[in-house]
Amino acid sequence: MSESYNLISQQNYIAQLAVDCVIFGYRKGEMHVLLPKLNFQGDFWTLPSGFIHQEEDVDDAANRILEERTQLTDIYLEQFHVFGKAARTNTAFMAELLRLNPDLQGEKAEFDWFVRRFVSIGYYALVDINKVHPQCSYLDEKMEWMPIKNMPTMIMDGQEIVERALLALRANFDDHLVGYNLLPETFTMKELQALYESVFDKPFRRNNFQKMILALNIVERLEKQFTGAANKAPYLYKFIPA
Amino acid sequence: MSESYNLISQQNYIAQLAVDCVIFGYRKGEMHVLLPKLNFQGDFWTLPSGFIHQEEDVDDAANRILEERTQLTDIYLEQFHVFGKAARTNTAFMAELLRLNPDLQGEKAEFDWFVRRFVSIGYYALVDINKVHPQCSYLDEKMEWMPIKNMPTMIMDGQEIVERALLALRANFDDHLVGYNLLPETFTMKELQALYESVFDKPFRRNNFQKMILALNIVERLEKQFTGAANKAPYLYKFIPA
Repeated sequence: MSESYNLISQQNYIAQLAVDCVIFGYRKGEMHVLLPKLNFQGDFWTLPSGFIHQEEDVDDAANRILEERTQLTDIYLEQFHVFGKAARTNTAFMAELLRLNPDLQGEKAEFDWFVRRFVSIGYYALVDINKVHPQCSYLDEKMEWMPIKNMPTMIMDGQEIVERALLALRANFDDHLVGYNLLPETFTMKELQALYESVFDKPFRRNNFQKMILALNIVERLEKQFTGAANKAPYLYKFIPA
Repeated sequence: MSESYNLISQQNYIAQLAVDCVIFGYRKGEMHVLLPKLNFQGDFWTLPSGFIHQEEDVDDAANRILEERTQLTDIYLEQFHVFGKAARTNTAFMAELLRLNPDLQGEKAEFDWFVRRFVSIGYYALVDINKVHPQCSYLDEKMEWMPIKNMPTMIMDGQEIVERALLALRANFDDHLVGYNLLPETFTMKELQALYESVFDKPFRRNNFQKMILALNIVERLEKQFTGAANKAPYLYKFIPA
């Protein structure tokens, strides 16, 4: 377990500033988000999050938190928005969470530090679900991949953070070749269309979709390998590196 | 002079978190940015910036800072990026700036507060230059509208913040009708083209530009008023409200 999930003191971290991570993965035709369920009475889900060391770049903190939570390095990551409402932190809930959890009995000063208002910097990540090994923090009962069409109840502004991450993902989707991180190395046009339909939450017409993708010039078609039934197999594509 | 430009203490503001504002205005065919020049030996320019009250939403803090600096209310404002490198704050420079400025002799605790590392949340604003009444802070010698093609030397990562603001502005330009905030109520196609050329820093061909704008469906053409020379005057346009 990483020290960053212990209670923290103001000497080590920047106070009142957090990083929240929306970790997107894709499987069975649906976009998912990796969420911890809190070890707390009731059904409370949250986002993988953490704090920023005094000597650490904010981007490095986000990368560290993601690595700790997924055991993956070299993750595709984008900072997308700051969540700064004064009332966004449910300080009473946090105090109760800390009070009821026997693993979280720290010094009074640390306790006070943790239950103040936090401004949070949102990052989204795109990962291959098959390569992720989710790591619980002290606060978590478990972590699960939840489909974005069927999200659980989240504490604080978790729902809003996921929604804004999805808007940012859509805005970046074509330009930044982000699909690269969500599909295997080669894929059919139909598989690519299913990914787009999940991200944008709308159907595309097959012919129009293929025209759009080819016009974007982001994929190349691979030669079919010769087999007896070759002309029945669909073409495979791969992304053209930027 | 607003209290927010006095030295500050940790009781009032969130520590180590700042807001930097890139205030864009347009005149004489060129985009400009409103910059304070520091009251300090040498030629040091910075961005209008400030801090966040403990009970204040971050967006409200950005609005307050902009109002204080421009005397304008109801400003078009977008949060666009967080600047979080650990080394971005030149703490030695800030200490010297405070030490040499007789208006800035505060308590030791306040001084220490001010010269720590800061993470900054970047906002850009779009304003009508003619309506702005720039307000200096205690730290400033003066404020000036500087053309983005001819920027002065800026302290810390000021240059990077302006460049990223411009990228964000370009990305939002068509969707968000941001030109609305930079031109008078009615304008000619030629005037609109000059604005686009300044924002995107490239020429557009007249016919292509007109086609693109009409295809975006963001402006409507006004009826020409009848005058003796009416057929010589160019058409006037105005933005269609979103």
